[in-house]
Amino acid sequence: MTQRYHSADLHNFTEELFTAAGCDDDKAAVMAERLLAADLMGHTTHGLALAAAYLEEIESREMTATGEPEVVSDRGAAICWDGRRLPGLWLVARGVELCMARARQHGTATLTVRRSHHAGCLAAGLPPATRAGMMVMIASSDPSAASVAPFGGLASVFTPDPIAIGIPTAGDPVLIDISSSITTNGLTNRLRTEGRRFPGPWALTAEGAATDDPNTLFTNPPGTLLPVGGIDHGHKGYGMALMVEALTQGLSGYGRAEAPAGWGASLFIQVFDPQAFGGAQAFTRQTEWIAAACRGNPPAPGHDAVRLPGARAAENERRAQANGVVLHPAIMPSLAPWVKKFGIATPSAIA
Amino acid sequence: MTQRYHSADLHNFTEELFTAAGCDDDKAAVMAERLLAADLMGHTTHGLALAAAYLEEIESREMTATGEPEVVSDRGAAICWDGRRLPGLWLVARGVELCMARARQHGTATLTVRRSHHAGCLAAGLPPATRAGMMVMIASSDPSAASVAPFGGLASVFTPDPIAIGIPTAGDPVLIDISSSITTNGLTNRLRTEGRRFPGPWALTAEGAATDDPNTLFTNPPGTLLPVGGIDHGHKGYGMALMVEALTQGLSGYGRAEAPAGWGASLFIQVFDPQAFGGAQAFTRQTEWIAAACRGNPPAPGHDAVRLPGARAAENERRAQANGVVLHPAIMPSLAPWVKKFGIATPSAIA
Repeated sequence: MTQRYHSADLHNFTEELFTAAGCDDDKAAVMAERLLAADLMGHTTHGLALAAAYLEEIESREMTATGEPEVVSDRGAAICWDGRRLPGLWLVARGVELCMARARQHGTATLTVRRSHHAGCLAAGLPPATRAGMMVMIASSDPSAASVAPFGGLASVFTPDPIAIGIPTAGDPVLIDISSSITTNGLTNRLRTEGRRFPGPWALTAEGAATDDPNTLFTNPPGTLLPVGGIDHGHKGYGMALMVEALTQGLSGYGRAEAPAGWGASLFIQVFDPQAFGGAQAFTRQTEWIAAACRGNPPAPGHDAVRLPGARAAENERRAQANGVVLHPAIMPSLAPWVKKFGIATPSAIA
Repeated sequence: MTQRYHSADLHNFTEELFTAAGCDDDKAAVMAERLLAADLMGHTTHGLALAAAYLEEIESREMTATGEPEVVSDRGAAICWDGRRLPGLWLVARGVELCMARARQHGTATLTVRRSHHAGCLAAGLPPATRAGMMVMIASSDPSAASVAPFGGLASVFTPDPIAIGIPTAGDPVLIDISSSITTNGLTNRLRTEGRRFPGPWALTAEGAATDDPNTLFTNPPGTLLPVGGIDHGHKGYGMALMVEALTQGLSGYGRAEAPAGWGASLFIQVFDPQAFGGAQAFTRQTEWIAAACRGNPPAPGHDAVRLPGARAAENERRAQANGVVLHPAIMPSLAPWVKKFGIATPSAIA
């Protein structure tokens, strides 16, 4: 059975957990806000489902709980940080903030971060920029892991390598969050645990046969997740993965070549101030025209409406704020040991 | 029957054609070089196959043959031009050159161009940056045309909206050129003319059924090209298209909202100097590691080897430089009226 909670209760609870675990106040606040934001948006594999794992990483000192990133280089519009394995959710929040300030000066700013810890749901990092009328892109890869093979190959080289893009319009922003593989490790693990299958042939067995079985990722040798486009046109997802790996690990100068151990991320963050290009009004005029053309598009059979990326997340968020946040039944039990250890009160489920 | 020519002969011939048509010398030289480069790389729908259409556009003054772009704004790392409908191939060449110079100063530079004419093969614009050790991205959309519907919809909103990415390594650069739709208008037209079908269900009929028939784009009302991911996960290509439209038309402040007439393009060009981020050597160390992991990957059944994007183009280019360039049999007849009009000698085919 799923459980339903007030959003504010979950926020306070999560913030208390991370504070008790030793995080700086600003980090605990941002992590609570962003994990909850992912749940509110419906990205439930990247919401509070991650909290227990993050708490373990803090306890084992794999995740740094305090302090600031180190500046590797700074040329105004181009910045590189060493993230010192600080929480990726917090580094993204701070990084987007910095890029927004720099984009106001230079028109655009790009930050790459080496040695971040896991960055969670990238889409949750977009709204601060889109609210300010800026276009924003966030990409992430984990050089310590690999589950996606290059198109035509059998051995994994890449992580799902997501890129998220925030586009302001005259109304709700467009919030895109797409991985370079058809599906993610998070969904693979969840379907496997629940004994379910992918909705399509989204993986490749170790021998190279397309399959809908998530267990194929756990054979020895393991199978791989297919890049976007799959068997038919997977060179497209392969190209996306190469782009994301170069933006994140290439530009930050830290990645697979170092064979790093431990769950982490290399990050790419970029912000554009439309005012510095063709003008803020001209930007919104284009993006709103396109948004309207999509929203008003006649739906194909099997679709009730054409949605913009982010629209369903906004609906989910409004519903959750009004009726409470539904958590997967495994989440509260996963946090029980930490609740006990820190002596924190568990929020009450809504009757 | 295909015909084979010396590359230098084709270059001189094409340059003469555009000079005779009234192009400035620098424009005729760049257009000849870049159209031929596309043919050499094997992107034959975007090589000399375009020359006759470009000559018609110059004659009808739809393509501007002389002069410079107008600077709409310039903040150093962020620039916007009005392309005055100058040749896209030439604007890309000039734009990448400018962004390289600016990236040396600022670490990164972004140029958007409104009112460019068609930009041809984007991959042909990458090598000048990768040769200098810089990462480069070029995206293009044509706000006067639409053949791709948003995922779940029936009415076209987007062009195939390609993005090309050049990534330096220790050896050959990675040269990615992927559209946001599974296939392009160029291939659709060619297959239709030849009475052939797509290799997969790459289009949607006007009623919303997946089909491999290129004729579906020409019914009334017309069908559409499917976004990358197709029926199964086309929200990925839909996200890419929204990103490319915002980068090109949003940031340049000129696009579909203006309902422009005539074949054209809005462009996005971005260059990164790795030296300004984590360092040039650290960049190449990562990208070369990844390139090697792809090249050395065990091939899946049905693939003879795992290739990096750009590797086949480099092979094609070496073969064409050595043995001559093979042109589609329709190309020389398409140029015959211009050869006659300008009194230019046609290059001799290699026996």
